[in-house]
Amino acid sequence: MASPTRSTARRAPQVRSGAESAKVLPADVRHLHRTLLLSHLYKSEPKSRADLARATGLTRVTVSDVVADLLDRKLVEEVGTRPGTRVGKPATLVTVDYTSHALVCLDLSRETEFRGAITSLDGDILYRDAIELGDDRGDTAVTKVTQLAHRLIDNATVPVLGIGVGTPGIVSAEGTVRNAPNLGWRDLELARHLHDELHLPTYVANDADTAVLAESTFGAGDANGLMLVQIGLGVGAGILCDSHLLRGPEGTAGEIGHVRVSDEHIVCSCGRTGCLETYLAAPRLRERLAGLTPDRATHELERAGQQLGQVIAPVAQTLGVFDVALLGPEDLLTEPFLRATQEAVNATTSHFLDRNVTTRLSALGSDGVLHGAAAHVLAGELGLS
Amino acid sequence: MASPTRSTARRAPQVRSGAESAKVLPADVRHLHRTLLLSHLYKSEPKSRADLARATGLTRVTVSDVVADLLDRKLVEEVGTRPGTRVGKPATLVTVDYTSHALVCLDLSRETEFRGAITSLDGDILYRDAIELGDDRGDTAVTKVTQLAHRLIDNATVPVLGIGVGTPGIVSAEGTVRNAPNLGWRDLELARHLHDELHLPTYVANDADTAVLAESTFGAGDANGLMLVQIGLGVGAGILCDSHLLRGPEGTAGEIGHVRVSDEHIVCSCGRTGCLETYLAAPRLRERLAGLTPDRATHELERAGQQLGQVIAPVAQTLGVFDVALLGPEDLLTEPFLRATQEAVNATTSHFLDRNVTTRLSALGSDGVLHGAAAHVLAGELGLS
Ligand SMILES: [Zn+2]
Ligand SMILES: [Zn+2]
Repeated sequence: MASPTRSTARRAPQVRSGAESAKVLPADVRHLHRTLLLSHLYKSEPKSRADLARATGLTRVTVSDVVADLLDRKLVEEVGTRPGTRVGKPATLVTVDYTSHALVCLDLSRETEFRGAITSLDGDILYRDAIELGDDRGDTAVTKVTQLAHRLIDNATVPVLGIGVGTPGIVSAEGTVRNAPNLGWRDLELARHLHDELHLPTYVANDADTAVLAESTFGAGDANGLMLVQIGLGVGAGILCDSHLLRGPEGTAGEIGHVRVSDEHIVCSCGRTGCLETYLAAPRLRERLAGLTPDRATHELERAGQQLGQVIAPVAQTLGVFDVALLGPEDLLTEPFLRATQEAVNATTSHFLDRNVTTRLSALGSDGVLHGAAAHVLAGELGLS
Repeated sequence: MASPTRSTARRAPQVRSGAESAKVLPADVRHLHRTLLLSHLYKSEPKSRADLARATGLTRVTVSDVVADLLDRKLVEEVGTRPGTRVGKPATLVTVDYTSHALVCLDLSRETEFRGAITSLDGDILYRDAIELGDDRGDTAVTKVTQLAHRLIDNATVPVLGIGVGTPGIVSAEGTVRNAPNLGWRDLELARHLHDELHLPTYVANDADTAVLAESTFGAGDANGLMLVQIGLGVGAGILCDSHLLRGPEGTAGEIGHVRVSDEHIVCSCGRTGCLETYLAAPRLRERLAGLTPDRATHELERAGQQLGQVIAPVAQTLGVFDVALLGPEDLLTEPFLRATQEAVNATTSHFLDRNVTTRLSALGSDGVLHGAAAHVLAGELGLS
């Protein structure tokens, strides 16, 4: 998983013991061991300490030590025993205590509202909430993000491990939204702001980047080559190539929505004209569909799909990405839309090595960004990916 | 640098000492130490063994041991002394012996010939050769590659460290050309073939991938985001994103030449019609220019540049790659061509964060693929990148 964005270092402070020595310190080693053990336990059957020692190569003493620490933090729990090899010594089994902590997840990519959820440590959504966005942009939109996060935290029945946010726009590795024209944000230190307000580790990433990680982690799709196009308030893409989430300089990768597709003078949120977003962003497409007869509406959706396909095609072909997932409102990503997208892709790409670029709906449905936000927190706080 | 493709494992065979243990073996450790020392010496000033010990964290004994081995292999040489800290103990300095070995480099991307060169270990071209390709394709083209490599090896005055090849087409990590329609190659085990014929470590990679590494290593360009478009027998792209060479599944990334740009029924080497290559591959473009008045020729070049720009734009924008280098025949990559390319890119991309996509000529001139082939051998044989 890509380096998660977090607002502050909650790890043990790094204290160097000497100017030129770069020794690995006990706190770091302990953190590594914890990560290693958790990754062996996460979504696997319960294991004994001896199992863990064998699987990780750590000594029994170290494993017992780290497990004691994890039990103390309530991240793992003991769940019965398995007969041991010697009489009278049954092995106690431990597993991740998935409901011991909550993850607070926010999806800021929606047309008309910010959505939020509380999930367990295995990503199950336990509670949902949302806040109307209306025409709020800029600072008032930030206030609504904070409100929603507060409400979610207040509704958590267990300690919150961290906050994950998927937002439209270009997001730096530190969780600063460099540019999100649809929300009127520029150089907004969103991760820092939320951390200062809520005093919890906070991870902010681009919505499509978040969703593509979720698609590959929890959904379908080959991390070797997967593009996810997110249609909501704007249009963005998250791209996994060679199992690597493409970030681009300062997080600029994925801005597919501002590829120019038309000479029509329709002004985009970015200030230019004719961007893909001016046709395909959900609010724009809805405006075009308003009042049309079903036939005309179908035609309009086909036209939007065709424009999307024409932009996807050169990108997918040049990256060798054959799997393209679309995430967005179900009433827009209809069968005619999808067919037109695929046809435009077919018309513009070659088949190599008997593979061809296939466009499909995301396997995660409308919760892709929320699940991705959860994945970011798990990666950052527990080293799970 | 990306994992180089090589035909055989020349390293010490991996012998496992026990079923479950995955110990690092002495031969591997020795290889790691050698790579570490060489990377500190390569293109740097001469260093003493004590300098190397300080810089690498290896013990003096290990450094002396590895340096002795490198001296033995003639990869480094002693070049005088520097006064030591104690009377009577001046420190002997060592440096890479750049002319001790030769690299044999092949560029198979040209319109009418295969080009080759012998370089020193620092990539300086010491000798050139070429072989006419004519209409040879398939097996006869392979024979010409072998001939050219033979001739180069015969002309080397020092031992050849390895052979590097940049070829058009989709190339697997093992150096198998999966599909190079312009040369009539399909599933051709080129690295294996050359190794069997020439008994030297052989690295085969896509021409544009090779050139983009050279552009970032020896030329200009930011490895964080750099696309190199190679125009020759065909049209391909090499892309560095987040300092990572994009490969795609089975090496399929970079096939920009087969993005469809036109409804005209011009059959491409790939079997489809209207691919960018049918306009922009050097032989095709020359055919179009043949017999035209200068004005008409300029117009035709502008049209070709525009088509290239329209394909580059969505890819560069979506990847956040702002630096696009073009490599190809100078008489085709003229000022009108470049201007038209840039104008098409400008018309199709947005400016984000005050960056915009810039197209330019490659800084390496016509030797980009040869230099990249050298870089592949250095990476593979000496661990240098
Ligand atoms: Zn725009
Ligand atoms: Zn083609």
